[in-house]
Order: sequence, then C-alpha cells, then structure tokens
Amino acid sequence: MNWPAHVTIKEVGPRDGLQNEQTFLSTEGKINWINQLSQTGLKHIEITSFVNPKWIPALADSLEVAKGIERVPGITYTALVPNRRGLEGALEGNVDDVAVFMSASETHNQKNINKSIDDTFPVLREVVKEALSGGKSVRGYVSTVFGCPYEGHVAIDQVIRVSEHLFEMGIQELSLGDTIGVANPKQVQEVLNILLKRFPIEKLALHFHDTHGTAVANILAALDMGITTFDASTGGLGGCPYAPGASGNVATEDVIYMLNNMGIDTGVNLEKLLGAGSFIQKKIGRSLPSRNLQACN
Amino acid sequence: MNWPAHVTIKEVGPRDGLQNEQTFLSTEGKINWINQLSQTGLKHIEITSFVNPKWIPALADSLEVAKGIERVPGITYTALVPNRRGLEGALEGNVDDVAVFMSASETHNQKNINKSIDDTFPVLREVVKEALSGGKSVRGYVSTVFGCPYEGHVAIDQVIRVSEHLFEMGIQELSLGDTIGVANPKQVQEVLNILLKRFPIEKLALHFHDTHGTAVANILAALDMGITTFDASTGGLGGCPYAPGASGNVATEDVIYMLNNMGIDTGVNLEKLLGAGSFIQKKIGRSLPSRNLQACN
Repeated sequence: MNWPAHVTIKEVGPRDGLQNEQTFLSTEGKINWINQLSQTGLKHIEITSFVNPKWIPALADSLEVAKGIERVPGITYTALVPNRRGLEGALEGNVDDVAVFMSASETHNQKNINKSIDDTFPVLREVVKEALSGGKSVRGYVSTVFGCPYEGHVAIDQVIRVSEHLFEMGIQELSLGDTIGVANPKQVQEVLNILLKRFPIEKLALHFHDTHGTAVANILAALDMGITTFDASTGGLGGCPYAPGASGNVATEDVIYMLNNMGIDTGVNLEKLLGAGSFIQKKIGRSLPSRNLQACN
Repeated sequence: MNWPAHVTIKEVGPRDGLQNEQTFLSTEGKINWINQLSQTGLKHIEITSFVNPKWIPALADSLEVAKGIERVPGITYTALVPNRRGLEGALEGNVDDVAVFMSASETHNQKNINKSIDDTFPVLREVVKEALSGGKSVRGYVSTVFGCPYEGHVAIDQVIRVSEHLFEMGIQELSLGDTIGVANPKQVQEVLNILLKRFPIEKLALHFHDTHGTAVANILAALDMGITTFDASTGGLGGCPYAPGASGNVATEDVIYMLNNMGIDTGVNLEKLLGAGSFIQKKIGRSLPSRNLQACN
C-alpha cells in the first residue's frame, strides 16, 4: 500500500459533533474547548454553524463562539453556512473559511435543506460568490456520497453532478461525506477511482462517520489512493442521540494515533488532543466513542 | 489494494473475550451464547480455556461448557490449553482443536505463563505432540507480536524464533497477536513482509485488539498482504476491566460488516451475529465496543 508523507486533519467536532449531541454545551465551554484544540497542532478547525437556531439549537451561539475564541496564527477557522443569512453571520464572526453543504441524494437534500438539489445550486452559488469576494476561502460538503438513509444506494453520477456544480461555483475543496457511516474500503476506492478522473486529488477531502466501525479502514483505503485530507471529530462526537454508544464522526484521536504511528506527519500532538477530548467528554457527560480516549492507561 | 475472495473469521469471544470480563457469565449463559454463535455461519469458535481456575475464574466451568454445547457439523470447536493438565481437560471435553500460546517478548511470557520462553518450549512441545496423537488439530498463538506492555518494541527476530519453534512442534496454524492493540497498518505490512518469507501464508492468522482504534484498518492492511484468517470477538468483548469503554478484541460484527459489504465471502450472517451480540451484551451488562452492535437502527 502507498502512504503519503503528510496528512491534513480537519477537526469538525465543534460543528458536526456538537450539532448531533443532546447535551447543550455552554458558550464558555465551547470557547474553552476550541482554544484547547488550537494548541494541539491542528491547523483547521470548524468551529460552528451559522444556521437558524430553530434547526440546530445546540449551535445558537455561533456568533459569540466565533468572536470569543482565541485566534492562533496559522490555524484556519471555518464555519458552516447554509445560505446568505448564514454567511452574513460568518462574515460578522470573521471566520477564515466558510463551508457550504448539500447532498448527492435528492431525498436527503430535500429533508436536510428543504429544497431540491436543483433549487439548492443558486443559493449556494450566491453564498460562494460573496464569501470569495469577502476574502474567505470556501469548502463544499457533499453528503450521502456512499449511501443515503432514505434512498440507499447513491448513483456516482449524482455525486459527480453535485461536485461539478460546487467546483464551478468556486469552492477550493470538496469534502465527500459518508454521512451515515455505511462505506467500506472497496467502495471508497471504487468511488475515488471514478472521481479522481474528474477532480484534482489535492482538492478532495474525505469525511467518514464510524457508525459501522469501518471509518479508520476507509481512511486507510483513501490514503492508498493518494487522498491526504480527512475530517474528524474529537472523541468521535456526534453519535445518534437515540443510541448512547452509537458513533458519530470518526474520532480524531484514533486517526491521529494511526497516522502518527505510521510515521505520517500530521503535526498533531496526540497527548494534547486527548486532553481536549477528556475535556469535552466530561462536558458532554457520557463515554465518547473514541477508542484512544477510552484506552486503559 | 488486493482483496481476497474468501476470509475465515475465528470467533474467540467465549475464551479471549470472557476471560477479560469482570462479569461472571453462568455456564448456562455460555452454552446458550455459543449455541447461538454456531447458527451464524461461523465455522470456528474458541469456546473456553482449560487453565487453572485460580488464574482465570471466569472460565472455571470449561469442561461443563465443552460438554454442554450443541456440536454443529462443519464447525471446529477450539479450547485453549496451557499445559498437559489443560490438554487432558480439552480431550475429556472432546474439542476438535486445541490452541497453545506463548509470547514473543520474554517479560510478557514470564508474567503470563510464569516461565521463560525457553522453558515454555518443552511444555508446549509435549502438549502439541499429545494433542496431535489424540487426533486434534493444533493452533499456536504468539502474543505481543506488535508490542509488549512491559518491553515496548518487540524485535521481529523474537517473533520468528518463537514461531519457528511452534511450527517445528507441529502446529497447523499460527495466530499472530497484537495483544495490547498497539499495531498500525504500516507495521502490520512490515512484519508480514518479513514473516511471509519464512512461513506459508495459509498457516498465518492475525489477532488484533482494538485498544487504539486501528484493528479494522490493520485487518485491511493484512488482507492486502494476502492474509485470509482473522480472530475476532462478538461485541468486541474483553476490554480492560479498569476502563469501562476500553476495547478488547476487534468486534466480530465490525469485521463481518466490512468484509460482507466488500463482497468478500465470510459465510457469516450479520443479522444473526448481532442477535448473539445483543444476547451477550445483555448478560455482561454494559455497552460493548462493537460499533455495529451500538449502531442507531
């Protein structure tokens, strides 16, 4: 297998993790946690989402968080935005980078964004344009790339179509999401084989959830294809609220443990990361899925 | 990456899993669980260990379990034995296959078996000889192949030396153990690269613990090297008793999910396996580490 020399891990716990947790973390707790993450060596942290608080009450304090955190030079702080109003918040919060999102499957897009895929394009096009002209870098998420909770299998042509639109809008990086954590390594390589014929490898990131225990292996399979950017959540935050042990995003600690021990440079200090993980675990008040956080020391 | 067409999973939960659990499972519970596992499509089940009950009280009922389970034709039922007395129990219990064990690192062998490596060889040689003459197949475990809790790094020459002795004794399969779950995929490929020059690939199995979240990825790396036999425990049983969430063996459900979804034939029905996993989880009385067992259905 082929291993790259360097991998970039983008921490999405404060956004993708927290938005799926039942426990409301105080603004002070969020800021404290993000400040700890900024000391671990991570260079990219997605700190919040500027969505309507009615949809995601857990992140209703997005502006306070963006304004309250300590900005460490060299770190890119990202916020998720669904539309122009969200972008206004992100600009007011002065993040470095904004992320837009949509789904590869029609039903998930409709349920998640309340619009058809075709109706989502113009909304995001405007957001991307304004974000770029505001001097921000822009990242795009495509959800349900490896499977949809409503439709099951998702045709690769749907992924390509949505991805092409996002790149045409001007996004600089595309994060391919296994939203419900159903992907397997063979599928990862098959999907990448097709997408890498159309999109530059340095602009693709992978975003795995660990619902079925395959996320770390999927990262390994993607590394072997030359992918060097992965999203992860401290502690593996973001599990399904209806099943206490269910896993959310792949745990940053587990990814860093593997990569660092393989001699792949991540720049991230595992001990410091475990410190930030212990902090958020205590705040959330349940054992988080990260294996390294639970390891018998 | 290279995927094989067929993989054999050897279930070790009733032995390696239970021996590390704090909860004592009744003999009836063990028999019920093993009988359920026999209906999942698994063809190899390690049912118990004939060790001195002073060492492992959890498995003090090994003979009753061996005699009490329903034998399904086509399934190989294995028992671990440390010495001649253990073998007598296994023969009385009429298992199909016996497993002997020792460590690649001197300190772990001394602490686990209370003998030096050199003093362990004659004991196992006698056991293997008698087991073979009793018509049993024999499997050997080498522990601490990828790291030792006392010595840290384990020299590959130590692994080779112990493995050669075990093969010379007549074992038909060698299971290489990452006893403390510290291995990474690069190390797995490096170790296998060396071992595969000396030992036939079809006689090697890998035995991963998921302490640091790398076990499924390690299996993927080993698959890519042509290994087709892996040990696993239902639920990921066997966590460290001092850390409730700590993971033991890699969870059989998670391995089967990945392999089945990759189109690799395991012969194992995931639904039935999850049923057996739910049963043992209820008996043990805590959330087990298996991601699939915890998945939000």
